[in-house]
Amino acid sequence: MSTIPSESLLTQLKWRYATKQFDPTKKLDAATWAALAESLVLTPSSYGLQPWKFLAVTSPELKKALRPLSWGQAQVEDCSHHLVLLGRTGLTEVDLDRFVNATAATRGVTTESLAGYKGFMMKDLIEGPRSKTIAEWAARQVYIALGQLMTSCALLGLDACPMEGIDPAGYDKVLGLEGTGYTTRVACPVGYRLATDKYAALAKVRYAVKDVVEVR
Amino acid sequence: MSTIPSESLLTQLKWRYATKQFDPTKKLDAATWAALAESLVLTPSSYGLQPWKFLAVTSPELKKALRPLSWGQAQVEDCSHHLVLLGRTGLTEVDLDRFVNATAATRGVTTESLAGYKGFMMKDLIEGPRSKTIAEWAARQVYIALGQLMTSCALLGLDACPMEGIDPAGYDKVLGLEGTGYTTRVACPVGYRLATDKYAALAKVRYAVKDVVEVR
Repeated sequence: MSTIPSESLLTQLKWRYATKQFDPTKKLDAATWAALAESLVLTPSSYGLQPWKFLAVTSPELKKALRPLSWGQAQVEDCSHHLVLLGRTGLTEVDLDRFVNATAATRGVTTESLAGYKGFMMKDLIEGPRSKTIAEWAARQVYIALGQLMTSCALLGLDACPMEGIDPAGYDKVLGLEGTGYTTRVACPVGYRLATDKYAALAKVRYAVKDVVEVR
Repeated sequence: MSTIPSESLLTQLKWRYATKQFDPTKKLDAATWAALAESLVLTPSSYGLQPWKFLAVTSPELKKALRPLSWGQAQVEDCSHHLVLLGRTGLTEVDLDRFVNATAATRGVTTESLAGYKGFMMKDLIEGPRSKTIAEWAARQVYIALGQLMTSCALLGLDACPMEGIDPAGYDKVLGLEGTGYTTRVACPVGYRLATDKYAALAKVRYAVKDVVEVR
């Protein structure tokens, strides 16, 4: 166990903000990036299916190509790692088998022993009513990853800026995603804030707990 | 600053799992619940609009009524706080004004000075193409909250079990949400695992970093 005091969590959640200006000279070191990548992989998902991929764009050329597809925002170029979160565009039995095989290998059990679990997923995701909105289901899972990513960054002292204002189709083209079964859902540049970013000092605007959280 | 070592983050992300058995005798104390509620409110959202509410069901009667709408899962009754995450069903200028007014009050500026920002949101969310899928946009924001919630729980040593397998319409009826402009998107019971929950000991199944995260 390596839990933290709730004061640390809240302090860091208040410290974070949608960073407008990154320091272009500051990059994540290899160990920090490795930890962040591992935290992304550890994101929970429905059934554990992980219907996503995460691209970390660090190439200046690629960043430059993505910036005009991101409302021209400078963070795309000035950040350290411009993360692009991709969701599966569909789901087939192949996805389930991949996961069932990974589960069997990780846990040292037979795939046959997981047949019931697979059948359950088949009925829900592939044959059931959810199959009609499966791309959106995958997109929502990607947003779990976005949430975990922003929280992880805050705790590690990294800055981030969630970006929905991007052209997903344009991103897919630039990143060569067409036909891969994955599509751009949201982006999130990560790096270190510029000391002079005036947005860092603005008071965070949140509705009161009493207006948002209700105990019943 | 109150950052944590990446080892702590990863240890806790590995410690968490979709809890199958909660200890029904263990409840969050008031301070822990207050911190968790505040962490929920601090969740980032698109434009900062917070198109959500969070219900924490602790009443045994309500939990009992929600259990059959949750594939009969025992966690609904045995957890401490059964969290139900709600998303806005639509978005109007009223939502924007609420947020603009809150921003003006928090930051000590006039609402007039925020007219540009409001106009930008109007064009994107209320009048633009995104207006057609605005409920889904709100649902995705709710999943950011789900991600932050699960990460926060892990760091605080709280157990959680994300639940998509619920009947949202049934939840809305039981919780009296019809006509409120909010709808059930996902649930997440929170509490403390039972020491004998065998799922806690199962190896976590995640695809390799090299298969999920790509640096370009």
